[in-house]
Amino acid sequence: MKKIWQKSDSSLHPLVEQFTVGKDYILDMALVPYDVLGSRAHAKAIHKAGVLTDEELAALNNGFDELVAVYEKGEFEITVQDEDCHAAIEKFLIEHVGPVGKKIHTGRSRNDQVLTALRLYINDKLKDVFAQVESVQASLLARAKKEQDVQLVGHTHTQPAMPSTFGLWFASFAEQLADDMLILKTAMKLNDQNPLGTAAGYGPSVTLDRELTTSELGFGAMQINPIAAQNSRGKIDAFALHALSQIMLTIGRLANDMIWFSHPSLGYVSLPHDLGTGSSIMPQKHNPDALELLRANVSIALGYERTIIEMTKNLFSGYNRDMQFAKEPLMNGFQLTHDSLEIMQLFVERIDVNEQIDMLPEIYAADQATKTAIETGVPFRDAYADVGSNKDYTPVAVEKKTIGSADNLSLEKIQQKWS
Amino acid sequence: MKKIWQKSDSSLHPLVEQFTVGKDYILDMALVPYDVLGSRAHAKAIHKAGVLTDEELAALNNGFDELVAVYEKGEFEITVQDEDCHAAIEKFLIEHVGPVGKKIHTGRSRNDQVLTALRLYINDKLKDVFAQVESVQASLLARAKKEQDVQLVGHTHTQPAMPSTFGLWFASFAEQLADDMLILKTAMKLNDQNPLGTAAGYGPSVTLDRELTTSELGFGAMQINPIAAQNSRGKIDAFALHALSQIMLTIGRLANDMIWFSHPSLGYVSLPHDLGTGSSIMPQKHNPDALELLRANVSIALGYERTIIEMTKNLFSGYNRDMQFAKEPLMNGFQLTHDSLEIMQLFVERIDVNEQIDMLPEIYAADQATKTAIETGVPFRDAYADVGSNKDYTPVAVEKKTIGSADNLSLEKIQQKWS
Amino acid sequence: MKKIWQKSDSSLHPLVEQFTVGKDYILDMALVPYDVLGSRAHAKAIHKAGVLTDEELAALNNGFDELVAVYEKGEFEITVQDEDCHAAIEKFLIEHVGPVGKKIHTGRSRNDQVLTALRLYINDKLKDVFAQVESVQASLLARAKKEQDVQLVGHTHTQPAMPSTFGLWFASFAEQLADDMLILKTAMKLNDQNPLGTAAGYGPSVTLDRELTTSELGFGAMQINPIAAQNSRGKIDAFALHALSQIMLTIGRLANDMIWFSHPSLGYVSLPHDLGTGSSIMPQKHNPDALELLRANVSIALGYERTIIEMTKNLFSGYNRDMQFAKEPLMNGFQLTHDSLEIMQLFVERIDVNEQIDMLPEIYAADQATKTAIETGVPFRDAYADVGSNKDYTPVAVEKKTIGSADNLSLEKIQQKWS
Amino acid sequence: MKKIWQKSDSSLHPLVEQFTVGKDYILDMALVPYDVLGSRAHAKAIHKAGVLTDEELAALNNGFDELVAVYEKGEFEITVQDEDCHAAIEKFLIEHVGPVGKKIHTGRSRNDQVLTALRLYINDKLKDVFAQVESVQASLLARAKKEQDVQLVGHTHTQPAMPSTFGLWFASFAEQLADDMLILKTAMKLNDQNPLGTAAGYGPSVTLDRELTTSELGFGAMQINPIAAQNSRGKIDAFALHALSQIMLTIGRLANDMIWFSHPSLGYVSLPHDLGTGSSIMPQKHNPDALELLRANVSIALGYERTIIEMTKNLFSGYNRDMQFAKEPLMNGFQLTHDSLEIMQLFVERIDVNEQIDMLPEIYAADQATKTAIETGVPFRDAYADVGSNKDYTPVAVEKKTIGSADNLSLEKIQQKWS
Repeated sequence: MKKIWQKSDSSLHPLVEQFTVGKDYILDMALVPYDVLGSRAHAKAIHKAGVLTDEELAALNNGFDELVAVYEKGEFEITVQDEDCHAAIEKFLIEHVGPVGKKIHTGRSRNDQVLTALRLYINDKLKDVFAQVESVQASLLARAKKEQDVQLVGHTHTQPAMPSTFGLWFASFAEQLADDMLILKTAMKLNDQNPLGTAAGYGPSVTLDRELTTSELGFGAMQINPIAAQNSRGKIDAFALHALSQIMLTIGRLANDMIWFSHPSLGYVSLPHDLGTGSSIMPQKHNPDALELLRANVSIALGYERTIIEMTKNLFSGYNRDMQFAKEPLMNGFQLTHDSLEIMQLFVERIDVNEQIDMLPEIYAADQATKTAIETGVPFRDAYADVGSNKDYTPVAVEKKTIGSADNLSLEKIQQKWS
Repeated sequence: MKKIWQKSDSSLHPLVEQFTVGKDYILDMALVPYDVLGSRAHAKAIHKAGVLTDEELAALNNGFDELVAVYEKGEFEITVQDEDCHAAIEKFLIEHVGPVGKKIHTGRSRNDQVLTALRLYINDKLKDVFAQVESVQASLLARAKKEQDVQLVGHTHTQPAMPSTFGLWFASFAEQLADDMLILKTAMKLNDQNPLGTAAGYGPSVTLDRELTTSELGFGAMQINPIAAQNSRGKIDAFALHALSQIMLTIGRLANDMIWFSHPSLGYVSLPHDLGTGSSIMPQKHNPDALELLRANVSIALGYERTIIEMTKNLFSGYNRDMQFAKEPLMNGFQLTHDSLEIMQLFVERIDVNEQIDMLPEIYAADQATKTAIETGVPFRDAYADVGSNKDYTPVAVEKKTIGSADNLSLEKIQQKWS
Repeated sequence: MKKIWQKSDSSLHPLVEQFTVGKDYILDMALVPYDVLGSRAHAKAIHKAGVLTDEELAALNNGFDELVAVYEKGEFEITVQDEDCHAAIEKFLIEHVGPVGKKIHTGRSRNDQVLTALRLYINDKLKDVFAQVESVQASLLARAKKEQDVQLVGHTHTQPAMPSTFGLWFASFAEQLADDMLILKTAMKLNDQNPLGTAAGYGPSVTLDRELTTSELGFGAMQINPIAAQNSRGKIDAFALHALSQIMLTIGRLANDMIWFSHPSLGYVSLPHDLGTGSSIMPQKHNPDALELLRANVSIALGYERTIIEMTKNLFSGYNRDMQFAKEPLMNGFQLTHDSLEIMQLFVERIDVNEQIDMLPEIYAADQATKTAIETGVPFRDAYADVGSNKDYTPVAVEKKTIGSADNLSLEKIQQKWS
Repeated sequence: MKKIWQKSDSSLHPLVEQFTVGKDYILDMALVPYDVLGSRAHAKAIHKAGVLTDEELAALNNGFDELVAVYEKGEFEITVQDEDCHAAIEKFLIEHVGPVGKKIHTGRSRNDQVLTALRLYINDKLKDVFAQVESVQASLLARAKKEQDVQLVGHTHTQPAMPSTFGLWFASFAEQLADDMLILKTAMKLNDQNPLGTAAGYGPSVTLDRELTTSELGFGAMQINPIAAQNSRGKIDAFALHALSQIMLTIGRLANDMIWFSHPSLGYVSLPHDLGTGSSIMPQKHNPDALELLRANVSIALGYERTIIEMTKNLFSGYNRDMQFAKEPLMNGFQLTHDSLEIMQLFVERIDVNEQIDMLPEIYAADQATKTAIETGVPFRDAYADVGSNKDYTPVAVEKKTIGSADNLSLEKIQQKWS
């Protein structure tokens, strides 16, 4: 079958066809609804510009309705010959509404079309992630409140250091996610820009009302300059993944803490029976596989982000086909983050904390020195030296009432941070 | 000399001393003024907590005044034995104001101390970068306005594609920087948080007024949870570098465009005589070395950012000494971005554009097809097929008046984007 | 269904099951034949150790024969419940040969089992890549010979610099691939080590003849230490991908050269009609899409390699489930390299070179200065200064007969390099 | 001062001068002796080509002798105006031996000159690293032998899994380093190639005897094609760093094991007093700072390698100034690896192992099941299920005599691996 760009005399080498289409005919299935939205808005804009009559616009919209119905029944197909969803949709229109379908591409290029579909797709995906993070954060705050008095060994340098609590530990990840959400919001804002109406990257040959399409598509802002719009391909996608990476880095550390906390020699937490897996050779094992895989996902998420950034680096301005291969890491990145958050929520809610941890006496040394310093007026540095020399450590009960500390977790402040 | 943490009976292996101190005794020189600010605020807080009398507070403040005076004369020194600026400052205080100097560390750890100094340092550096980016953006907008009618070949797939203008090209980088500034502002907001009062990561043993230190230091927000504060080491630093990377990625593409635009076979721009360099063997050469090195800096900047992120990945919660080695890539990242922006500003202002570029006729084909479609009512897809088959390309003058396009650059919208 | 490691009283949370299995039940299909090979060798070893009677060994081998027959008919299945190919194969054996199937795992763990299957798989894949690279290299050498007298502009700093030839350019990539093949051979050697007989990472509880399994499986060497074997998971895989990355980096630069060489203003090469693609909006376009995508693949390949390395970094010794997720980037990396080499071979063989390139006179300046220096005895630095000042460039014919230069390409030396 | 490439009428913008010189005038100090070696060889080659008389060659060699003497006294200087060591050396020659100094650059470019100096430098540095790794490996093997009977808990999934020994653990890192040395040897072989005589990347204008310079400089092979030589800049450097990264990855895992092994709740090892450091606030602390920093160095080393690779990616063929900035990460990478190996050797030699570790009874479950299976003929899978259900774990003494296992460490095989 002829491509939309093929002239009668042309043919394409089969290896080149297969290589250039890549997985687009599969991945683009997720973009179809977004491309239809973008195309509807574009139809409105060219109608306003006089390219379409009222009847033609209505015909196209009927075509889009039909397409959506077919898609929702799971019957819309993109073939390798179509190359991508954009061509498949144009073909569908021509077949279903006739020659007017050949007008939809007036003043548009696949370059701004795919950008529009991706922006809309990413908008939706980022909202989903945001909701998931809020939910994990809520679970962390709930656990923090519940375990606020359960003692835990606090570490520095991977060595027991100071008395801590499970409340302090759970709350810390709630706050780390709060910071991640600030970045996530920026990603949402940056992505929420309308590229439609920039055509191939040098503006359309017909004057289009971009305020109209921006409002039609619900975008918060407009990408003004057409070259800038093209150069943002990959860049904005990668920043969305960067926001996801931040979340993954946070829950990766939480997973790693949980893995070590469940080492029997530490014994701070234990995994509920149905959250651990066994070994093919060691019958006694109860392993934190899901947490280990989550930890692996952090590196994979970072890999996806960096791959996209690297594709854009020092690239000549304007559309470059290179960016087509950014779709897969982008989509995979969203899936991976979704799955990892889902698993982490389960562990946050279900992990068992040990209420009788062995609190080693030496971790009270700093409290001891400070207490002495305050009660006796001896300078801290001297009290510190004394405790260090005597090595006579006694657990002392020192209330930690500074904002954020164990006896003043300030959970509501964490919850409302940045809002 | 004994370290502040050394007991009388201890000694440290010279290789370990050298390795653990690393370059801190050099790099920390940049942190001294910030550490003094943090220490002054901490003194106020422990004074309020009753640890210091009014006289002791005054004495410490005199000590800080003295220290700053010595530092500003370039006479403050951090030795390898001191380890870092924090120990050097404490030592200075003890030597200059006596035993009260030994009280300054009450309720504080080097862990929150270094975080505070770094946050203040990064705040300042980010402001400097922001101002530089605004300045480069202003130059780009000025060039865009000046060259708005100078024609340029627009490319897609690195192939001549559509008519463009130098105005469109300069403006595009102004907008790309606008998006970068949105990320930069988020980095500024995220970094502008007070970690002081979180001590070693488990809260101070004395109750401190953190609202006081937050306001004293001019921070916009507070890091609430002490473990979260420690786990943010590296994370927030890396996000600052991520914002810088975005800028570097933008100006790297600009540099690469300039390099290719100055290829004599394209001949779109030429480098002023004093901005190019020569060859040791080819007497005719006039090379864009500075632009090539700027392009290399993009990879270096990304390397710094990723190195810091990787250091934090899957690390056990709480302070880890690993993060000490994040200082050098952080500081280098700021220097590199500063230098690169400075160079880019020069090129933006000085590069010569060719007003008589050879505009290849085939780049008007899309305009031609669209014009035919609109004027005749023939669907675009058919007009496109005609032009493609006939290969009879004629330059057509089509006004591009859509927002952002060559005849409607909307420079003021770009300038005000996100503000 | 119960897992092989499940006790009667256990159940696994469905989210954890789904997350931990990941795509193993799909990816592992490629490993089945290799796992069977490994299992056959292991059966021999435990037979020799007295665990299996002659009859039991024969029964197991019949089971393997059956399994392979089923697999080759495309009827072998790994279900999500099986988790992976190892469990599926053990289950198949038990179902088809009875209780003796329950003996196959004596003295073995999935930890050494999966390592063995991966080593054998990687061995095969590396051999395939090596053959492909040899083939591309042969095409490059053939083109180099054919176009040895076709002139080309040689660049430094992306600026025309010196006279070159297509022969020199094609030959250069043949030599770059020769260096890549040296690395590839090291990857082959490093991977060609037998991990079987190291069990879970602490040695089997029954003494096994590892010389036997090494020779049975055709491995060139043995991984001696069981912990080292486990810690090599990911490391050796990543080095295989590193070798692939080197190849991708080489052909990525070749692709990028071709993209720029085909810019009409340079006009050094042109793409045969069936190797380029068109635009949806610009009817005149003939784009090097396949080369752009190949260029993108370089970043993707590097991403896969680094993801695996990062997963292993600073990981606690012994088997970690994290590494399961290294399978997908590993397998994808091989596919991507295969596809890219296939495309590059096509372009190397088919790209059209322009025999009438515009050789700019200034590129002869260095030849001119050297010629003057040699003929007149004037020091080179003075002759250089003269040519540079006069700017009177005349093409001079200077034979370049040094080894490797245009008039002495030494193609046979390149072909035999490192062999 | 005029640059060697400057014409009388030129000047260079001070910002451009500063930016393009970068740190070359400092970093190049390390290259001076190597550049002199390369220049001596080049002088021989152009003498043989008739460019220099016997007297001129002798004069130049006297100049080199003088230069080396000055350099060894620490009095050789490279100024910012010189740009780099190559220009500084040519200037020195001209000043010290007169006009013949102006002949040294005949048939040479800084492009092949710097490549030659870097190859020679890297050759030396790689040899140093190799010797260091051999030494650390020897210490590991010595410790393995000494502690071969000291019991250790073996982990999988960061959970206690099987009985192990310190001998097994030390030996494993000896073998991991053996594999790294195979890669290191490849890096040495790949780097040991002569680029001299390829000039600016298009061959010299005078015919040079490259066999002569190859043998003169002691190179094992020759880079044949001049473009390939230029394109190897960065590539071969990065592969040298890749070899270093492998070593860093190995000792990073060892450092991380040691950090966790020294956690008091595990108590497997303890740090000698002089190898740990203290805390500014917690008087009891004895921290593994050096090991944590070593772990950070792994990420830094990987960062250096990747930065250089990324600089070369998809770069237009021929010399590009971008690569100048590869010098610093290259040199830093060698220093960092040297320092890290030095520290690791100290820890390997000095770390105290606990001879009375708490061996948890459940880690004998696999041994128990296997023992039962072998002694009773019950299939392993059934014996495994029994042990798992009963949860009645008893330490059993099972000899592990398979090659590589605890009772057959095969240290000599590890030592001789790949040799």
